[in-house]
Amino acid sequence: MTNGMIRIIGLDPGLRRTGWGIIEAQGTRLTYVACGTILPPENAPMAERLAELHRGLAEVLARHAPDEAAVEETFVNMNPSSTLKLGQARGVVMLAPAQAGLSVAEYAPLLVKKTVVGAGRAEKAQIRMMIGVLLPKATPQTEDAADALAVAVTHAHHRGPAALRRAAL
Amino acid sequence: MTNGMIRIIGLDPGLRRTGWGIIEAQGTRLTYVACGTILPPENAPMAERLAELHRGLAEVLARHAPDEAAVEETFVNMNPSSTLKLGQARGVVMLAPAQAGLSVAEYAPLLVKKTVVGAGRAEKAQIRMMIGVLLPKATPQTEDAADALAVAVTHAHHRGPAALRRAAL
Repeated sequence: MTNGMIRIIGLDPGLRRTGWGIIEAQGTRLTYVACGTILPPENAPMAERLAELHRGLAEVLARHAPDEAAVEETFVNMNPSSTLKLGQARGVVMLAPAQAGLSVAEYAPLLVKKTVVGAGRAEKAQIRMMIGVLLPKATPQTEDAADALAVAVTHAHHRGPAALRRAAL
Repeated sequence: MTNGMIRIIGLDPGLRRTGWGIIEAQGTRLTYVACGTILPPENAPMAERLAELHRGLAEVLARHAPDEAAVEETFVNMNPSSTLKLGQARGVVMLAPAQAGLSVAEYAPLLVKKTVVGAGRAEKAQIRMMIGVLLPKATPQTEDAADALAVAVTHAHHRGPAALRRAAL
C-alpha cells in the first residue's frame, strides 16, 4: 500500500469454477498481477467441494497478498436449487478474504460491464476483449478469470467508502 | 468413537441464526451433549458476518470434537435473494466441519420430521417437544438449536454409506 498503490483481488464465484484476478492500482494506472481459476472436484460431496474451494482461494490469497477484495453480485434469475448452490460457493468465496482481514466489496454485473466496456448490455466476449486492452499483460484462460479481472478493475474505479457501504447491504 | 460410540453435530444453517446441537449415539441409545445458537452481527458487511459465523462454528467444533456432521437440507421456496443469502451461510456452515475432517451428511426436512416426530407434516413445536422426550437433558433455548438436535438425531438413525452418498448429490 506504499505510494498509494493498492493490490486488488477480484472474484467471480461458482461451485464448479471460481475465477480470480489480481491487479495493482496506483491512481488511475492499473497493472496486471495474476489470474486463474479454481476448479473444486465435481464428484466429491458438497462439503469437500467447498473445502477445496476455500483451500484453493486461501492459497491464492497467501501467495499474492492483496489489500482489498471485490466480488461480483450474482444474477438470481435461475432455479432456486442452483441459486442455493451458487450461494454456498459464494459464501466460501467471501469468507476467505474476510478471514485474511480484507474488506470485501460487492458490485452488480451491470456496473462491472459499464465500467469495463462502457455499456451495461456488454457480452462476455466484449469484457474479455476490454480486459486485453486495459490489462495488456493479462492472458486469462477462462471467462471466469476474465470476469474476475473485470471485477477487480471495477473496484479500482469505484473503491472508497461507498464500496464498503455497498458490501454491508 | 470407542465402544461404537459416535459423537454427532447437527446443524441448522442461517445467516442470522445458525443452530447447532451435539449428541452421542451408541447403538440406539442417544445422549445429549450440548447445543446453542450462533448469532453473527446483523449490521456488519456480509463477508464479516460469514467470518463470524465460521469463527463461532470452528470454536464449537474445537470444544466438542464431534466425529460426524449433519446439515438440514434447505427449503428453497422463498425469494431468490433470500435463497442466495441462505446459501452463503450454508456454504460456510458446511465448510467448517469439512475443514475439521468430518463427513457432512445432508437430510431433507421431511425426513428429519418423520424421524423425530413420526410425521412429515410436524410443526416446529412438535419437534421441540419430541427433542425433550428423546433427549431429556437437552434444553434448547431457540428453535434453531432444537432443529439442529433433530438433525443430529436423524443422522444417528440414518447414518452409514447412504447418508454419505446423499451428501454427494
